[in-house]
Amino acid sequence: MAELRQDPVSGRWVIIATERAARPRDFRVGRGRRRGGFCPFCEGNEGRTPPEIYAIRAQGTAPNSPGWQVRVVSNKFPALRPDAPLEGEQSEFYNSVGGRGVHEVIIESPRHLVSPTEMSVEDFALGLHTCCERSRVLSARPGIAYVLIFKNVGKEAGASIEHMHSQLIAIPVMPKRTMEEMRRCHDYYLEKGRCLFCAMVEWELERAERTIIDREGFLVLSPYAARSPFELCVLPKGHRAHFYDLSVAETRRLASVMQEALARLELCLGGPPFNYVIHTTPVAMSETKYYHWHIEVIPRITHLAGFELGTGFYINPMRPESAAQHLRDVPERDVREAIATLSSPDT
Amino acid sequence: MAELRQDPVSGRWVIIATERAARPRDFRVGRGRRRGGFCPFCEGNEGRTPPEIYAIRAQGTAPNSPGWQVRVVSNKFPALRPDAPLEGEQSEFYNSVGGRGVHEVIIESPRHLVSPTEMSVEDFALGLHTCCERSRVLSARPGIAYVLIFKNVGKEAGASIEHMHSQLIAIPVMPKRTMEEMRRCHDYYLEKGRCLFCAMVEWELERAERTIIDREGFLVLSPYAARSPFELCVLPKGHRAHFYDLSVAETRRLASVMQEALARLELCLGGPPFNYVIHTTPVAMSETKYYHWHIEVIPRITHLAGFELGTGFYINPMRPESAAQHLRDVPERDVREAIATLSSPDT
Repeated sequence: MAELRQDPVSGRWVIIATERAARPRDFRVGRGRRRGGFCPFCEGNEGRTPPEIYAIRAQGTAPNSPGWQVRVVSNKFPALRPDAPLEGEQSEFYNSVGGRGVHEVIIESPRHLVSPTEMSVEDFALGLHTCCERSRVLSARPGIAYVLIFKNVGKEAGASIEHMHSQLIAIPVMPKRTMEEMRRCHDYYLEKGRCLFCAMVEWELERAERTIIDREGFLVLSPYAARSPFELCVLPKGHRAHFYDLSVAETRRLASVMQEALARLELCLGGPPFNYVIHTTPVAMSETKYYHWHIEVIPRITHLAGFELGTGFYINPMRPESAAQHLRDVPERDVREAIATLSSPDT
Repeated sequence: MAELRQDPVSGRWVIIATERAARPRDFRVGRGRRRGGFCPFCEGNEGRTPPEIYAIRAQGTAPNSPGWQVRVVSNKFPALRPDAPLEGEQSEFYNSVGGRGVHEVIIESPRHLVSPTEMSVEDFALGLHTCCERSRVLSARPGIAYVLIFKNVGKEAGASIEHMHSQLIAIPVMPKRTMEEMRRCHDYYLEKGRCLFCAMVEWELERAERTIIDREGFLVLSPYAARSPFELCVLPKGHRAHFYDLSVAETRRLASVMQEALARLELCLGGPPFNYVIHTTPVAMSETKYYHWHIEVIPRITHLAGFELGTGFYINPMRPESAAQHLRDVPERDVREAIATLSSPDT
């Protein structure tokens, strides 16, 4: 049975997930997961995943059969389960809670695509819209403290299945990072009377040295203290607390901006593995004036995370201003061509 | 010029190091660093590193020539420099300081070895002793807030040069992780009147389910909330604030325990890439009753760090108690043989 444990020294939470029945040989060096070309996420293979929880599909088509555009299923090896007991250990310094929560997979295309740049903007928008929908539904469940949504693209970024998908983990405790971000933004608001992110948006737009894309109401930035080369931050220019409050029209615009950002990364770096993670207001806060949702995009192009994992201290060998310049310098035409070529159904 | 920047939202510090003159093509996918078999750290190639800062070498041999056992040089592409200006930016929310500090490389063997298990215990002890020495010297320098010591073994763990070495980074600001660990341990001491680590040592010894090695005054544990399979914590059983206070006899004992821990990992996992990081009391604290140095050992066998990097939330697919069991189950004889075979000068 999975559980969530808190490290007494650092305060961070870890899901100890044993559903995958890990043994040392699963981690032996040189062992890759091969699936012989079979993909459980492709249209026609619906029977090879857990049952459908939600889908956007053609009228008249049955659940768990072809005809869908986006499909949400439970993770086959869920880190958390909705029916797990909540009781944990409370000792003098060790704390745990039961592994109660939700772990879903959002399969964003019936075709075997690997990156959002290979989709039409409408299809990618449906995927983002589905993330909002699931996030809204799960945020309303009792016992959920936070809903994490993230995407891994490429094996080095942790993707065990190549077919494009996002993951959603709804957890019963607050991640320490979120707690810290909320606290710092709360303090800033109390001191300055405004949202830290809104202040940053204004500052960055004025100086323009770290801005990469500014259109459709969204901004793509190279963060001031980026941890790694070409890290990006995507955020709405106006104040918005919850990611899941995006309208359908807004997801369409966000999809377009995200596609451009990812296409620029791919053209600069040759299709790097990457992660993106959505940071949003915790579910307990119906609305906040001091926290502003944003997406962190982290290309996995350096192997530094071990040192960083151990120290919480990062070394970035590239100035964020240079990264922004390189990304801006990718010609508009190349970006358009890359997205159009990749997203054509014939390719 | 390098600088240290603080992220306004999370509070973490990042070294923006531009000495390596990074360009997008340096990060392009599939590009590996190849050195055609030449190793600047091997005996005889002393002229190919920056000049020697410190060495343990045979009497009568000249600096920067053969005859050494351990050799300390400046990192060829230092993240920080002792002569950098300290002035940084202080805006409403962006803070930076100049990249003043020290970045050294401790070359732990004149031979081309890659892991501590390939050395004699005496030689590995000299390497650890040198880390203590450099740490003590640099801790006394004005303007240094913390001395980070870490080792990367294997390309996936961030080692750009295979030849065994540790790195030391002396920084002018406090890493956020250290700040948090200190605060939590300080709070625990105020509440309970004892060191959190000392309490944990006692607890773990009583229950024995997460202990792997207990000898020579050191304990090797599978941490209660390990972030990844086979993560280890190595610490002195008695209260010790500063790593650099180890006596020569103690470094010999620590070397022996570390070798056994790493040999067990290697026998379980087939020579995984790994990092270890020394966590110690900040230099401003001459002595503390509430913080206890320890070493985090992180085998790099899963590709999960992207999600973790973005959320600060970890998923570990193996119970720490199972990892401890697997590591304890490696037969004593295999461990002795592995170390003896690898550390023989003839191999």
